[in-house]
Amino acid sequence: MIKLVIIGSGNVAQHLIQAFAKSKEIKVSQVFSRQKETIIPLLDSSKITTNFNDLIEADIYIIAVSDDAISKVSSQLPFENRLVVHTSGSVPIESLDNKNKRGIFYPLQTFTKGKDVDFSLIPICLESENDSDFDLLEKVAKTISNNVFKSNEKQRKALHISAVFVNNFVNEMYRIGNEICEENKVPFEILKPLILETVNKVMTLSPKEAQTGPAKRNDMQTIEAHLDFLSNKNHATIYKILTQSIQNNGKEL
Amino acid sequence: MIKLVIIGSGNVAQHLIQAFAKSKEIKVSQVFSRQKETIIPLLDSSKITTNFNDLIEADIYIIAVSDDAISKVSSQLPFENRLVVHTSGSVPIESLDNKNKRGIFYPLQTFTKGKDVDFSLIPICLESENDSDFDLLEKVAKTISNNVFKSNEKQRKALHISAVFVNNFVNEMYRIGNEICEENKVPFEILKPLILETVNKVMTLSPKEAQTGPAKRNDMQTIEAHLDFLSNKNHATIYKILTQSIQNNGKEL
Repeated sequence: MIKLVIIGSGNVAQHLIQAFAKSKEIKVSQVFSRQKETIIPLLDSSKITTNFNDLIEADIYIIAVSDDAISKVSSQLPFENRLVVHTSGSVPIESLDNKNKRGIFYPLQTFTKGKDVDFSLIPICLESENDSDFDLLEKVAKTISNNVFKSNEKQRKALHISAVFVNNFVNEMYRIGNEICEENKVPFEILKPLILETVNKVMTLSPKEAQTGPAKRNDMQTIEAHLDFLSNKNHATIYKILTQSIQNNGKEL
Repeated sequence: MIKLVIIGSGNVAQHLIQAFAKSKEIKVSQVFSRQKETIIPLLDSSKITTNFNDLIEADIYIIAVSDDAISKVSSQLPFENRLVVHTSGSVPIESLDNKNKRGIFYPLQTFTKGKDVDFSLIPICLESENDSDFDLLEKVAKTISNNVFKSNEKQRKALHISAVFVNNFVNEMYRIGNEICEENKVPFEILKPLILETVNKVMTLSPKEAQTGPAKRNDMQTIEAHLDFLSNKNHATIYKILTQSIQNNGKEL
């Protein structure tokens, strides 16, 4: 049985606790959480601590806190030479205090409070300072996910930035589409089949092959009519920039 | 039996021919196509004409050609006072020659050659110059789709522009994500579970509620690290503008 301690109480920590609860080879021995009440529904309360000095011995300590708290939390750990990993896509491995053996356990997904996710589909990117720690990290990751990758810092950062484009920025396109619908009194629901088909296409075609529309066709008449229609300056600016980007087809502006 | 003539041979025309072929109340009596060979696999070749003067009588003529050809095609029709509709999201109803009764039959979807779509899920927006023609249009649309809407020109334009955001621009985010992955030698495949979850979220949450990430959190440290990482100027420009848009949360720039 591999023993884990999870430090944190946010979305990532909560989803990890739930995912490991289903694994037979892994035991979440303890969770450190300043907000004890958010963890109580997920774990026996005797296993929750709010004091670093009460941390018990474990095979891996997973720090799942906000990016800017990772470094401080890692220095507060009252032990040395154990395996300590964090779950962030953008924080370097060196931000972890070097009194412990360091690693990365980065699940690439958008977690929403209260919304279940199928962890087996979630890619997990792993890094370890010492090669000898990698096998253990991999073993642990593979008990919850079928998509485990060895990454290096550059690859992990690239994935994190790409994730911003395909998740946050895609969602911003949905928000603007919704806003245009509201302004013109049409239900956003009408767009949902198109939203689904857009994603379906990119599951089998490359995004370049999947592209259609006025920018791709260089249909200046429609583009100008759209810009005329868009009274919201933010919408118009984004429309222009993304139209240009499609027209340039990957060449730099 | 309602008789249709479809004019055009592109993606929309082809998908409409296939959709109506399954309807018992509708008969595609004829297709006008300059590229006869693209239609032959879909329809008995005796029903295909390349000559406007050979067009037969029908209840509705559906012009499914490129936006800039709609007006010219409608003037070339050798008859008057029949119901003629086009399938474009952005061309005004007035672009159709007024010698005929005019209408709009706009299916809101991205059509890909050779890729089947379930037409029953595709929203169809309808408009008619004369109220008396609307019922017939609606009857025809409802035989192939469960999502039929009465729109006006402003609503249709708004939907068309929103479609550019949630389809073309979303796909451009995928293209850039793919490009960043390629540049850093990570498989784009790793992002697909995140891409799917992003869409799943917006099926039940509003895009505003669904948003996460550094821009939403106002995490300037991560944003600056990402901008440092993005050596491609096009990516950096888009990153900045969309980060601002998320931070402003719908307020104009």
